[in-house]
Amino acid sequence: MDIDEYNGTAVMRRTVGERPRRSWRSWLIGRPLPTADAPHQTIGKLIGLAVFSSDAMSSVAYATQEILIILAVAGTAAFSYSIPLAVAIVVLLAIVIFSYEQTIHAYPSGGGSYIVARDNLGELPAQIAAAALLTDYILTVAVSVSSGVAQVVSAYPALFPWRVWVSVALVFFVMLVNLRGVRESGITFAIPTYFFLVMMYMTVGWGVIRWLTGSLGTVVNPPEMEIVQTLQAVTPFLILKAFASGTSALTGVEAISNGIPAFKEPKSRNAGITLIWMASILGSLLLLITILAHQIQALPSESETIISQLARTVFEERGILYLLTIAATMVILVMAANTAFADFPRLSAIAATDGFLPRQFTYRGSRLVYSRGIVALAFIASALIIIFRASVTRLIPLYAIGVFVSFTLSQAGMAHRWWKSGHLKPGEEKVERGSTLRYDPAWKYKMVINGFGASVTAVIALVFGATKFSDGAWIVVFLIPLQVFIFSSIHHHYRSVADRLSLEHFGAYPRISRHRVILLVGGVHRGSLAALRYARTLSDDITAVYVSIDPNEAAKLQKKWEIWGEGVRLVILDSPYRLFLEPLLEYIEEIDEQRQANEIITVVVPQFVPKHWWAKFLHARTADTLRKVLLNRTEIVITEVPYEVH
Amino acid sequence: MDIDEYNGTAVMRRTVGERPRRSWRSWLIGRPLPTADAPHQTIGKLIGLAVFSSDAMSSVAYATQEILIILAVAGTAAFSYSIPLAVAIVVLLAIVIFSYEQTIHAYPSGGGSYIVARDNLGELPAQIAAAALLTDYILTVAVSVSSGVAQVVSAYPALFPWRVWVSVALVFFVMLVNLRGVRESGITFAIPTYFFLVMMYMTVGWGVIRWLTGSLGTVVNPPEMEIVQTLQAVTPFLILKAFASGTSALTGVEAISNGIPAFKEPKSRNAGITLIWMASILGSLLLLITILAHQIQALPSESETIISQLARTVFEERGILYLLTIAATMVILVMAANTAFADFPRLSAIAATDGFLPRQFTYRGSRLVYSRGIVALAFIASALIIIFRASVTRLIPLYAIGVFVSFTLSQAGMAHRWWKSGHLKPGEEKVERGSTLRYDPAWKYKMVINGFGASVTAVIALVFGATKFSDGAWIVVFLIPLQVFIFSSIHHHYRSVADRLSLEHFGAYPRISRHRVILLVGGVHRGSLAALRYARTLSDDITAVYVSIDPNEAAKLQKKWEIWGEGVRLVILDSPYRLFLEPLLEYIEEIDEQRQANEIITVVVPQFVPKHWWAKFLHARTADTLRKVLLNRTEIVITEVPYEVH
Repeated sequence: MDIDEYNGTAVMRRTVGERPRRSWRSWLIGRPLPTADAPHQTIGKLIGLAVFSSDAMSSVAYATQEILIILAVAGTAAFSYSIPLAVAIVVLLAIVIFSYEQTIHAYPSGGGSYIVARDNLGELPAQIAAAALLTDYILTVAVSVSSGVAQVVSAYPALFPWRVWVSVALVFFVMLVNLRGVRESGITFAIPTYFFLVMMYMTVGWGVIRWLTGSLGTVVNPPEMEIVQTLQAVTPFLILKAFASGTSALTGVEAISNGIPAFKEPKSRNAGITLIWMASILGSLLLLITILAHQIQALPSESETIISQLARTVFEERGILYLLTIAATMVILVMAANTAFADFPRLSAIAATDGFLPRQFTYRGSRLVYSRGIVALAFIASALIIIFRASVTRLIPLYAIGVFVSFTLSQAGMAHRWWKSGHLKPGEEKVERGSTLRYDPAWKYKMVINGFGASVTAVIALVFGATKFSDGAWIVVFLIPLQVFIFSSIHHHYRSVADRLSLEHFGAYPRISRHRVILLVGGVHRGSLAALRYARTLSDDITAVYVSIDPNEAAKLQKKWEIWGEGVRLVILDSPYRLFLEPLLEYIEEIDEQRQANEIITVVVPQFVPKHWWAKFLHARTADTLRKVLLNRTEIVITEVPYEVH
Repeated sequence: MDIDEYNGTAVMRRTVGERPRRSWRSWLIGRPLPTADAPHQTIGKLIGLAVFSSDAMSSVAYATQEILIILAVAGTAAFSYSIPLAVAIVVLLAIVIFSYEQTIHAYPSGGGSYIVARDNLGELPAQIAAAALLTDYILTVAVSVSSGVAQVVSAYPALFPWRVWVSVALVFFVMLVNLRGVRESGITFAIPTYFFLVMMYMTVGWGVIRWLTGSLGTVVNPPEMEIVQTLQAVTPFLILKAFASGTSALTGVEAISNGIPAFKEPKSRNAGITLIWMASILGSLLLLITILAHQIQALPSESETIISQLARTVFEERGILYLLTIAATMVILVMAANTAFADFPRLSAIAATDGFLPRQFTYRGSRLVYSRGIVALAFIASALIIIFRASVTRLIPLYAIGVFVSFTLSQAGMAHRWWKSGHLKPGEEKVERGSTLRYDPAWKYKMVINGFGASVTAVIALVFGATKFSDGAWIVVFLIPLQVFIFSSIHHHYRSVADRLSLEHFGAYPRISRHRVILLVGGVHRGSLAALRYARTLSDDITAVYVSIDPNEAAKLQKKWEIWGEGVRLVILDSPYRLFLEPLLEYIEEIDEQRQANEIITVVVPQFVPKHWWAKFLHARTADTLRKVLLNRTEIVITEVPYEVH
């Protein structure tokens, strides 16, 4: 095909880059995939439970422990409060699930907090939801991986000093897997999830049997707890704080509401049933683990997890069943982190499409995944793990607040939605901000449910923020508004750029009346003469400019220019302070000030291009610097004429 | 002044940048100085001794100690060898000085090893001398500052854990002083140098008197030596190794031969006398310190220097005289480091002018000093201090080898010079490589002196390299050839670039027969239309190119282009792998291959220039990347038309 055949307003399409080059990247994450390869498949309830529940169910690995750690400041006697607290958390779980059931049926195309808040509450609540959720996803990775490594460290204490780096390595492993964009065949999720459920129910089941038969006993050689100097009294504040820690069990329950479109038809019904299964499993495991932990007098500790203490007490030794339980817990926690690696990039891409995040987050990489979001998540989560020394206990105060803020916004959005739908006529439909609103006879009842959910989760968010404020929640309390501020600034920027570049009410640019060329010369040689030749094709109005630091050099240059300069005028700028850029800029700005309307100034820069990469360090890269400064200052066109190329 | 008045081959000079802007830099290192301010002043012998001797004389602060540390592996009984070793080093000093006297008279304009080797032996020996000297200057800074801090730590042991950072801070302090380019009024050098000489002679003088009167005694509470597990025998190897350590006393004696032009007339005579004074002081101090250290049974240690042990034993307490001695020693050592900060940048600038180092080293900064050399020296020396934990003993094995290599080359160069001058007729003069050669009737005698000096120092260099090889000398043995390789590569690069750009045998570039323009469009907006308008001033042969990742977007763009594109043909490149750069490059290369002789291709890139610096992160900076890749690949002119500027 020769494009020379085309003249006039010809438009031509062609496909290029059919076979992308292979590189170290394709070795690491696999060969590039064409856009047409994007997958579509749906899943049933059993697989759906596995795909969407790892985040939620894995929280039983640390929720009980985090309750006990808070109670520990009041002595081991206070541990008996853990059981009523677990019951309260299960009640809270029921309220949230009940509320989410309605979302699932109202948003069959996927009702994450961000979308529900955006559609029903507006831009600011949507930005708050996005900030809360992104924070939450980052913490999911940090907490889950740290907890997973803590399980392994419980079984192999020699790993304790390496826990931070093992955690970081795991994060990057999960990152690589996600950059490859493994086709999520449900089975990859189902095996570890059901393995975890089997091991967990085996542990608590056998534990309950031994408890009821009186043969359970207590933990042999319990780990050393951190020594508390002076025991505190059991205050309502302490109880609320322990409760807040326990609410970390609820993180991840919103996953199914994001994933409705992945389910088989009837999507909403299947997703709803799966949600109830998940809640039942989560609630029962949390309760049983808490009761048994209390029974065996397990002690919360950085060196051995409650799950490990429970498993070795139930199975009476660190045998194969113990190790399988630890392995299953570890794997489900890594799966939970993996979920965040799917959610974070997707939400970033949605928010970026809406103009709240840099547009780069919408680009799909060579493997059709949102690679930038994946990489960003891995780096931020790793930083958190390093800062908090892979300690779940230190990370928890940052965790659940974002979750409950997003719960609140999502439920409030739904309540508002029911209220609006109640004001339609029966049978009437209304499309608002992209979603369809229908009259529902039960709108009042549904509004109350969601409103109640929103109120309860809002109270929890406040309790969490207040009780954990000085432990680290302040970071999130500060970060969420900061993120919202950043989102708004980005949005404002994109909108104002689009306005200013818009062609609406735009006539045409006036004709160019004069074209003035400034040619930089650093010496008279083949390179500068090539630039001169090019400059002459642009205009007859050329000025060559030379900055002189050494008068002898300037005199030599002047002589050479008189021979080779083709009569083009030369301006020598004497620089008494041996500066190069500043005199040039001063001169160019002076000319720029004299510029008339529709006059164009082009600066022609002869650009030395070395053969070898290292040679660039041997030449003053003033052209590069000049280009950066000029581009940022003035409306001047910069033309680089390369020389000394291979 | 309006440059528009000029037409034809007008050449115009003007001075710009009269009052450079003040910035954080000028706050740190002072206001910029104009080139005309470069200083010229000459100094007498007493001031000359102070200015050029601090490096040499300061070595008495560590030379004795380093001899003792080597002998210590054979037990304290071996310490008695230190006295004959000191005598041997003084003899060596006499030989070197005798040899250098001749250099001073033959090179009144300054005869550093590099210049003597370059003028008389050729390029490769000059490069070796440069490598050896630059290495030596770096080590002078590291060793002197470390030793200076070791003196302070002896007086204030609490500083011991901070010695590395105190040393690095001192290096950067000296760097700043040198960046300011303090006008070296001789007095700034004279005060600390003569203060040091007074304190040193007071210490050793009082020590000798007390020794002769029998009241000297031994060190009270000597520091703990490192425990040697099994004592070695006193082998010739050990003696040679101790001797090699002691030769570090000779570092810096070449300084006067570099500085001859600074002396008052008769320059050579004054410099020669100063050299003899310096050698006498250095020799006498080294001998007396070594004898007294043996007398008081001082023990070499990282925690207290020999100077400190000597001073507190002589003065019987850690009183004012002791502290003044420590302070004087510390200051002279910092002065020695300061000397290297003058020598290293100057030698780099000379070598850069000869094309062996990046040309950037020849630029003088705002304060008229070779700032890049100064900064480079500070960073490399600090790195060494950090790596070797500010331990003089660990640094010494790297130190003197470079010094003796440069001594050897300098003396060998002189010997060769006498040989050549002997082959001239009496009264004849010959200019060779920039220096004037005259017949000298005593040439044979002088050749023997320098030849003997060269042989002795060559043997010492070999002894040093062999005995210290595994202690660290291998680093230098490896680094010097590496540097020589780098110097040659740089030299080759500069020469070959100059050849290829040379206008000798160059006629003229042929006329440009066709100008083809490729206009990149990412969208149709005011920015791309501004670029289109500019492109139309360049040529009528324009192709707009758009890379399509999303077919819907491409269709929209095509419609808009049909309205706004002024009939310019549009090529849409479909990119199935969502790549942007690769398809463009493939397309441009294809066009480049079809290029005929004297055809020019210009790529016009609309360049988005954000208002705020942070906004650049919100836009794909493909233009930047494209520019870098294109510049490195092909002979294509790149034109950036900025838009969305303030």
